[in-house]
Amino acid sequence: MTVNGSGHVRAAILGASGYTGAELLRLLARHPDIQISALTAGRKAGQSLERVFPHLASLELPHLAGLDEVDWDPVDVVFGCLPHGSMHDLVRRLPARVKVVDLSADFRLRDPAVYAHWYGLEHKAVDLQPQAVYGIPELYRDAIARARLVAGPGCYPTSVQVPLVPLLEAGLISPDGIIIDAKSGVSGAGRAAREEMLHGEVSEGFHAYGMGGHRHEPEIEQGLSDAAGRPVKVCFTPHLLPMNRGILSTLYVTLAEGVTADDLREELGRRFADEPFVRVVPREVSPATRHVRGSNHLLIGVCDGRFPGQARLVAVIDNLVKGASGQLVQCMNLMLGLPETRGLDQLPLFP
Amino acid sequence: MTVNGSGHVRAAILGASGYTGAELLRLLARHPDIQISALTAGRKAGQSLERVFPHLASLELPHLAGLDEVDWDPVDVVFGCLPHGSMHDLVRRLPARVKVVDLSADFRLRDPAVYAHWYGLEHKAVDLQPQAVYGIPELYRDAIARARLVAGPGCYPTSVQVPLVPLLEAGLISPDGIIIDAKSGVSGAGRAAREEMLHGEVSEGFHAYGMGGHRHEPEIEQGLSDAAGRPVKVCFTPHLLPMNRGILSTLYVTLAEGVTADDLREELGRRFADEPFVRVVPREVSPATRHVRGSNHLLIGVCDGRFPGQARLVAVIDNLVKGASGQLVQCMNLMLGLPETRGLDQLPLFP
Amino acid sequence: MTVNGSGHVRAAILGASGYTGAELLRLLARHPDIQISALTAGRKAGQSLERVFPHLASLELPHLAGLDEVDWDPVDVVFGCLPHGSMHDLVRRLPARVKVVDLSADFRLRDPAVYAHWYGLEHKAVDLQPQAVYGIPELYRDAIARARLVAGPGCYPTSVQVPLVPLLEAGLISPDGIIIDAKSGVSGAGRAAREEMLHGEVSEGFHAYGMGGHRHEPEIEQGLSDAAGRPVKVCFTPHLLPMNRGILSTLYVTLAEGVTADDLREELGRRFADEPFVRVVPREVSPATRHVRGSNHLLIGVCDGRFPGQARLVAVIDNLVKGASGQLVQCMNLMLGLPETRGLDQLPLFP
Amino acid sequence: MTVNGSGHVRAAILGASGYTGAELLRLLARHPDIQISALTAGRKAGQSLERVFPHLASLELPHLAGLDEVDWDPVDVVFGCLPHGSMHDLVRRLPARVKVVDLSADFRLRDPAVYAHWYGLEHKAVDLQPQAVYGIPELYRDAIARARLVAGPGCYPTSVQVPLVPLLEAGLISPDGIIIDAKSGVSGAGRAAREEMLHGEVSEGFHAYGMGGHRHEPEIEQGLSDAAGRPVKVCFTPHLLPMNRGILSTLYVTLAEGVTADDLREELGRRFADEPFVRVVPREVSPATRHVRGSNHLLIGVCDGRFPGQARLVAVIDNLVKGASGQLVQCMNLMLGLPETRGLDQLPLFP
Repeated sequence: MTVNGSGHVRAAILGASGYTGAELLRLLARHPDIQISALTAGRKAGQSLERVFPHLASLELPHLAGLDEVDWDPVDVVFGCLPHGSMHDLVRRLPARVKVVDLSADFRLRDPAVYAHWYGLEHKAVDLQPQAVYGIPELYRDAIARARLVAGPGCYPTSVQVPLVPLLEAGLISPDGIIIDAKSGVSGAGRAAREEMLHGEVSEGFHAYGMGGHRHEPEIEQGLSDAAGRPVKVCFTPHLLPMNRGILSTLYVTLAEGVTADDLREELGRRFADEPFVRVVPREVSPATRHVRGSNHLLIGVCDGRFPGQARLVAVIDNLVKGASGQLVQCMNLMLGLPETRGLDQLPLFP
Repeated sequence: MTVNGSGHVRAAILGASGYTGAELLRLLARHPDIQISALTAGRKAGQSLERVFPHLASLELPHLAGLDEVDWDPVDVVFGCLPHGSMHDLVRRLPARVKVVDLSADFRLRDPAVYAHWYGLEHKAVDLQPQAVYGIPELYRDAIARARLVAGPGCYPTSVQVPLVPLLEAGLISPDGIIIDAKSGVSGAGRAAREEMLHGEVSEGFHAYGMGGHRHEPEIEQGLSDAAGRPVKVCFTPHLLPMNRGILSTLYVTLAEGVTADDLREELGRRFADEPFVRVVPREVSPATRHVRGSNHLLIGVCDGRFPGQARLVAVIDNLVKGASGQLVQCMNLMLGLPETRGLDQLPLFP
Repeated sequence: MTVNGSGHVRAAILGASGYTGAELLRLLARHPDIQISALTAGRKAGQSLERVFPHLASLELPHLAGLDEVDWDPVDVVFGCLPHGSMHDLVRRLPARVKVVDLSADFRLRDPAVYAHWYGLEHKAVDLQPQAVYGIPELYRDAIARARLVAGPGCYPTSVQVPLVPLLEAGLISPDGIIIDAKSGVSGAGRAAREEMLHGEVSEGFHAYGMGGHRHEPEIEQGLSDAAGRPVKVCFTPHLLPMNRGILSTLYVTLAEGVTADDLREELGRRFADEPFVRVVPREVSPATRHVRGSNHLLIGVCDGRFPGQARLVAVIDNLVKGASGQLVQCMNLMLGLPETRGLDQLPLFP
Repeated sequence: MTVNGSGHVRAAILGASGYTGAELLRLLARHPDIQISALTAGRKAGQSLERVFPHLASLELPHLAGLDEVDWDPVDVVFGCLPHGSMHDLVRRLPARVKVVDLSADFRLRDPAVYAHWYGLEHKAVDLQPQAVYGIPELYRDAIARARLVAGPGCYPTSVQVPLVPLLEAGLISPDGIIIDAKSGVSGAGRAAREEMLHGEVSEGFHAYGMGGHRHEPEIEQGLSDAAGRPVKVCFTPHLLPMNRGILSTLYVTLAEGVTADDLREELGRRFADEPFVRVVPREVSPATRHVRGSNHLLIGVCDGRFPGQARLVAVIDNLVKGASGQLVQCMNLMLGLPETRGLDQLPLFP
C-alpha cells in the first residue's frame, strides 16, 4: 500500500520483532527524514516483516536479518532493542560515524558494579560508558544533542524522573522517603512467550511484583541522586495492569520547609512550559494513561498529600512511546539536529 | 503543547463530543490543509474541549458551541456527527459553497420510505437526497469528487460492501443467500451513557443483537442491489465484542458457476491493487481487527467455504476510522481535490 | 431450571437490581438456610428478575417490587443495597424482630457530623447509630453475633482494616504516616449508567480519582483510630482498574521500634490462623486479585519496605464478595447463629 | 483455610496444571461425594498446587505428581486432561473398576482413520473405542450412565450439538448447508506459553482461525450425522474473542418444509424442559456468554433467519464448564449413580 519513506538518514533496528521494535517501525516509517535500511531479529531472523507484524504489511520494509548479516555501510543510526548484555560488544564494532540509541540497560548505569549486580552480567564496555548519555531530552537535552551513544531510559524511570528531577534540583522536595507506587500495562514485559503473560493469566486481575527489588530502582536512584546532589534511595513498588499500554506512577513526596503542592505544580509548569511533549495538568484534572495512549506525551498532576508537608504527584506515559521507542526517536532527532518533534506528532488514540 | 494547524480549509465538526467527533479531531488536527474553525456539542455545549476530551488537551481548539451559535462564514466544510434526523434541515440552511460530509443516516438511503421505516423519522430533505453521494471512495470515487454532500456509510456496511460490491459487479458470486456474521467493538455504540454499554456489562462477554432487524441491513442491501443489478436481500447478524475498536465481518457467499474462492481473491486483488487503504491478504493470512486499529485500512481475506460452490470472506476495519471518521476525511480529500491519503497515513497501533 | 431454596430464614434484598444485589442473589440463592422472600428496585421496580439479570433466569425468584410494596411479615432479615441516606428511616419502620445488614454508609460512621460532611446528608437515625455494629467479622465477630443492625463496611476499608487493625492493636506499626495506594475494579462504582463508566472510557486505561478526599477515608480512619487508641490519619489514593472485580491495596507503614516485616507477617498469621476467609501468604508470594475473584477470600502479603523501619503490605479481595455482599452474608450467618462459612464456600474463578 | 472434602469417591486428575484441571479442582473440591486422591502434571510435576494455582491455595490437596508415580489403588475415577494421544495406552493399563472421563480427543471419534487424519496420531486403542460413550448427558444420558469410559466432547461441539441434534432427529431442519459461525474466549486454547496467546496479542482484537479446517469439524459432523441418519457436512468458522471464558455459536440452518423458527424453539423447549442445565430463552432474549460464566449452563436462542426457510440459533456456554470440566463432572455423576447436578449448582458470576 505505502512505501517506506526515502529519507536521507538510514536507520537500522536491531531486535525489531518485539513490541518496542514494532513501535519504532510505526514511528520511523512515517518519519520524513528516515529510511529504514536494516532490520534484525533473533529467533525470527529470515521471516518477512508481514509475518511477524501483519499490521505493518502495508510497508515495504527489509526482511528480518540475523545480526551478523547486517551491512553497516548504509546505516547512519542504530536503534538497539536487543536483550540486556548485547550492546557492549556491538557498539565497539560499529563504525564511529554511526550513532546509537539503545533501549537496553547496557549503558544506563554509570557504575559497572551496579549493572553487574542487577543484570547478572559483566559490563564489557566500561571504557565506552562515560560517552553514553542518558536519554531523557527534557532533562538532558544538550548532552543528548552532542552524543554519539544514547542510553534510552527504562519506562518506569522516565515516568518518575521527569516530574521529580526538577523538584529535587529546585530543592522543593526532600530527597528522603520518596515512595513510588507504579503500575504498568503488559507490553512493558515484551513479546516473549511466557505463561505469566498469557491473556488468561493477566486479564481481569492485578498484582504487585518485584517487591524484593526491581532493576529500575538503581536507574531511578542514579538520576534522582544527581538531581539532589546526594545519594537518594526510593521505595519502588511496580504493579501489572490488565491492559496493553500505559504506565501510571503515583509519587508520594515530602515537601521542603514552607513549600506547598501548588508550588510544585507551578515549578513544573514553569520548567516544562516550552516542552512539546510534557504537560502539567490543572489541579482538578487526574492524568489517565488513556490520555496519552499511542502518543509521546507525558502528563503530570500534582495535588496535596494528606499529611502536613506531604504532596502527591501522578505521572502517565505510554510505556512503548515516551517510555521507550518514542523517546528514542526524540533523542535521535536531537542527535541529528532535526526538529525534536519530527515524526512524533501522533495524537493519543481514544477510545 | 501543539497548535492546531492553520491549513487553508476551514472545517466545522458538528457533534464533536462523541467518539466519532474525537476521532475526526485526532485526524483533522494533524491534516496539513485543515483548520478547525468550529466545534459543536449538544448537552456539552459550553464546555472546553480539554474537559470533554482530556487526551486532546494539547491542541488549541475552539470551545464546544451550541449548534445555533456557529458562524458559518469561516467554514468551508462541515462534518456531521449529529444524531439521525438532524441534518435534513441543517444542510438546507448551509451556504451553498459549504461542502458537507455527514455521518448520520440522513442521506444514506435513497428511498425516503425506507429511511422512515428504519429510523422512525420523516425524511425532511427529499429534494436534496438525489444530490447525496454515498461515501465509499473505493467504490464511488468519481461521484464523491464531484459531490457537495456526501453520506458517510455505516461501519458495518463499509466492511461488507467493499469486498462484495466488486464480486457482484463481476458476477462472480450469487446475489442470493449472502450471510453476514458481523462483530463490532463497543465504540460503534457511541458515547451516550447507557447501562448496557457499561464496562461491567460489556467486558468479558459476547452476544448477538438486532436479530429482529438492524438499520444497516437496508443500507447494505441498497449497495449490493446496485452492484447486482437486481434486488438483494442479506442475512445480517451483528454481535458485540468486548473491546473498543474494530469490526470483523465474516461473509458466506455462493460462488457463480465455475468460480472458485481463488478467483474471488484474484478479482479483489486486481480491483484494489492501487488502493492505498484496502489490502487483500494472502490465502494463509487471517485478517484481524488488531491489524488495522487506529488506521484507515481495510483488509480482506478469502478462503474456501466447506460446501461445494461456497466461499468465505473476512473483512476487518477500525470502525471509528475506515468505518466512520477516517472515511469521512478520505471523502473530504476527494471533494476538495486534495490527495486522497492526506492526513490518513497513521499506521495501526499494535499492541 | 432450579428452584430457589426453601430455607427457613426469609430474606429481603432492597435495591436488588445493582451489582451488589446480583451478588447477594448469587450467594443467597444457594445458601441452604435462606429463602428469598422479597426483592425491591427503584427505577426497575415491576420488572422480572430475568430481564434485569438474565444470568439468574434459572432461579424462581420474586419480581422486583417497589420498596413500598414489600410485606415485611414474611421477612426475617433485610439486606440493604440502597443509595446512601435510604436506610435511616427504613430501619426505624421495620419490625424489631427483623435483622438488618446494610451496605450503604448510613450506619458506618459513628459521628453524625462526619457522615453529614462526607455524604452531604443529615443523619436521621442518630438514636439508632449506637446499635449498629461495623461488619468485619474477623475484627468484630462477637459484637456482630449479638447485633440486630450491621453496617456493612466499604470495599476499600475492608481491604485496609483487616490487615492493619491487628498490627495497630499489637503496637507493631506506627499510627502515623500510613499510606494507602488502592486500586479497584469498576464494579465498585455500581451499575448506574454514567459516561465515565462506559467500556469505551474505562477499558485499556488507568487513573487515580478522589484525590481531594474520598468517603472511605473517614471510615478507614475510624477503624484504625479505634485500634490505635488515638486519632489516626491516613493518606488514601484510590485508582480505577480496567477490569470488573477486585481490589488491591498497597499499604506503606512505619514499623514500631525493633519490629521487622517478618514480625508483621507472623502476627497476622497468628491472628488469622483460624479464619476461614483470610490467608497470609508466604513472603515470596504476591497476592493477586485474580486469586480471590468470586470468593469471599482476603489475602495479605507482607514484605520489607525500602527504607529502614518501613514495611509494605498488599491486601486483595473481590470487592463484590468480601468487599460487599459476601461479607454481608458472613455477618448474617453470625447474627443468626449459623456456621459462619455457610453459603460462602465458592472457590475463586480462574481464569 | 478449608479442607478437601472427604467424599467416598476417590478421584485422580491427570494433567491438573492447565485451565481444565483448575476448573475440575474448583468443582470437585466442593463436590460432597468426591475426595481428590491424586493430581498429575507434566513439566510442573513436583510443584505444589499453591504454586501452580495460587487461587486454590486454601485447599489441602496432593502435590502434583508425575504420571508414573500415581498409585491407582485409591482411585475410583480418573479425569483425563492430558494432551491428545496420551489416553489410549493409559486407559488399557488402568484397573477395570476405575471409571474414566477423558477430555482429550482420544476417544471422541469412532473412525480411527478420521482421528489419525485430524490429530496426526495413530489410534492405539481401536479395540476400546466401541466402549467409549460420547459425553453429552442431554443427548446420551442412558449410555453415559452405563459407561466405564466417557469421551468428553470438545467445547465448540457441545455448543453446536445440544441445539442441533434434537432438531435433526425431529426432522425439523435440513442436514444440508448448516453454517456454524463460532466464537471462543482464549481459555479454550489452554495454558501453554505461546506468543499468539499473550495478552498483548489477544486483547483488544478479534480474528477468525482454522479456516482451512478445524479438529472440531469431524466431531460435530459425527454427532449431527447420527442425528440425521445420513452424512452431514457443516461449514464451521471459529473466531477468537478477547476474553477468557465463553463460547457463542451462531448457527444458520435451513428449515424443513412448513417448519418455522418458532417450531424449533418449541421443540427445543419441550426436549429440554426438564434439563437442569439447558435453557431455551424467549424469542426476544439474546443469549450472552456473560449469562453463563462460571456455570454449567447452556442457553439457546432461536429466531427467524432473513431468507424464506432459514432460521438462526445462538448457543452459549462457558467453555471451561459446560464445554469441558463441568460436563465431565456431570457425566461422572451419571456414571456413579449420583444426582446429575451434584457439585454443579454454581450460579453464573456477573459481572
